[in-house]
Amino acid sequence: MIWKRVATAVVLIPFVVGLVLWGSTGVVTLGLAIVTLLSLFEYFGLGEAIGHRAYKFWTATCALLILYLQWLTTVVRWGEFGSIAYPQKLSWLLVHFFPRAEDAFFVFVIGVTAITLFTKRPLVETLPAAGISASGLLLVAFPLSYAVRLHGQGTQGPRLLLFALVIVWAADTVAYFVGRTIGKHPFAPKLSPKKTWEGAIGSFIGSLLVGVAFAHFINAPLLQLLGMAAVGNVAGQAGDLLESAYKRSAGIKDSGNLLPGHGGILDRIDALILAIPVVWYYWILVCAPRS
Amino acid sequence: MIWKRVATAVVLIPFVVGLVLWGSTGVVTLGLAIVTLLSLFEYFGLGEAIGHRAYKFWTATCALLILYLQWLTTVVRWGEFGSIAYPQKLSWLLVHFFPRAEDAFFVFVIGVTAITLFTKRPLVETLPAAGISASGLLLVAFPLSYAVRLHGQGTQGPRLLLFALVIVWAADTVAYFVGRTIGKHPFAPKLSPKKTWEGAIGSFIGSLLVGVAFAHFINAPLLQLLGMAAVGNVAGQAGDLLESAYKRSAGIKDSGNLLPGHGGILDRIDALILAIPVVWYYWILVCAPRS
Repeated sequence: MIWKRVATAVVLIPFVVGLVLWGSTGVVTLGLAIVTLLSLFEYFGLGEAIGHRAYKFWTATCALLILYLQWLTTVVRWGEFGSIAYPQKLSWLLVHFFPRAEDAFFVFVIGVTAITLFTKRPLVETLPAAGISASGLLLVAFPLSYAVRLHGQGTQGPRLLLFALVIVWAADTVAYFVGRTIGKHPFAPKLSPKKTWEGAIGSFIGSLLVGVAFAHFINAPLLQLLGMAAVGNVAGQAGDLLESAYKRSAGIKDSGNLLPGHGGILDRIDALILAIPVVWYYWILVCAPRS
Repeated sequence: MIWKRVATAVVLIPFVVGLVLWGSTGVVTLGLAIVTLLSLFEYFGLGEAIGHRAYKFWTATCALLILYLQWLTTVVRWGEFGSIAYPQKLSWLLVHFFPRAEDAFFVFVIGVTAITLFTKRPLVETLPAAGISASGLLLVAFPLSYAVRLHGQGTQGPRLLLFALVIVWAADTVAYFVGRTIGKHPFAPKLSPKKTWEGAIGSFIGSLLVGVAFAHFINAPLLQLLGMAAVGNVAGQAGDLLESAYKRSAGIKDSGNLLPGHGGILDRIDALILAIPVVWYYWILVCAPRS
């Protein structure tokens, strides 16, 4: 089991690191689109286990639209217009008319309405279907789409996304080995019986060490990087537990079996779903205004 | 029944019209906050009828945050900065850091995570609770919040919101009387047995007449107003049927009993939930770029 896990990681990690560091934001968005769709469909699988059938195709379409709009915002933000003193009229247009991720949510509402009215499904499924579709879009696809924003933060972007990935990977790895060797006190016995306080604390320290390691790689003071690693770690651990709660709600052990030794893809990226947007907000609110 | 209905309308309509035409966007937002909370709680009531218990307090908080952010966007758009050639740095800040409705959705995700991890509710409720909360926020509260944007569209704003309200009111009234007198062919027998094609067509014509009536009131060509009335009417009728689908999914006849003769508040504003954002998008995409 552990060997399968390591082997999968050894194959995937260099690929992901290369994509993030040397791929354009557009290419990263495409890669993310695949991960988002796989995650969303695993989430829908959890819903189906308790009889909640999502509007799968439509929700997936809106998830892709969100990714596209996040990418478009990034391009306009930092690309063609970034260094040009664009005229008053254009900046007005940007603020007023430029489509954003939130517009995709209204497109979603329109589609759900049309599907509900024209579907041949039993009417009794309306509320559960709307629920599992809306929650998949809001709790899985939307937070993941922040990876596009993060990658698109100018020259720092790729490194910031890598930072979010590495703090989560380090957290997982340290938690695994610390928990196995010295872990005794259960951390969240109902949600995830194998997790221990020792592992959780180890995971936190692991993320902080990544913060130190990135000090010469990201243009921000060490204290801010440590803060970013700390909030990213807490968000990641919370995301991990949240997905355990989904699975227990659905009465399922693994959300999927895509990656050998890692369970499903949702199992693998649950921590990133929350860690990535938290790192983005930390960067935007704490680091960027001072730089 | 019909007298109760008329009496309630006679009391409420002048109040709403006065508020929309002479109230500031802030005051309209406060009024809308009450309507949004009542609607959201009725929606949660439908969920509870099938055992889906929402995170009520948290979702309501995020609904208010969405309204606040929509109002804030409106103020910055058209208020202090509207007529000033604000400097490059500021317009950059507006595009990059200014909080939008979409940020409230991530705040929602964080809160749902925290509640899920710290709640004492059975874990099996996680997916249904996330579903009914997310769908309430996305399908009820978020579309309604577009009323703030619409009202905040400069000098035309209050008239545009009134336009959206009146096309829906006229649609309902004409549909009711036409359907009662000459209605024969069922329109959506499964969803709403009393609706007829005659009523639906009458409702469409009623909305178009409102478009004509507003020609000297809103600064846009008649053809565009007719188009706005047409799409608003279709969206309104769809919103009406969507709420019928929710109720049938929950096995409930009326979503509430707040307004004498009108059923619940969700029954009363179901058409507006879709008509208001559709009118807003029509205005922004079709009318405003040419004005």
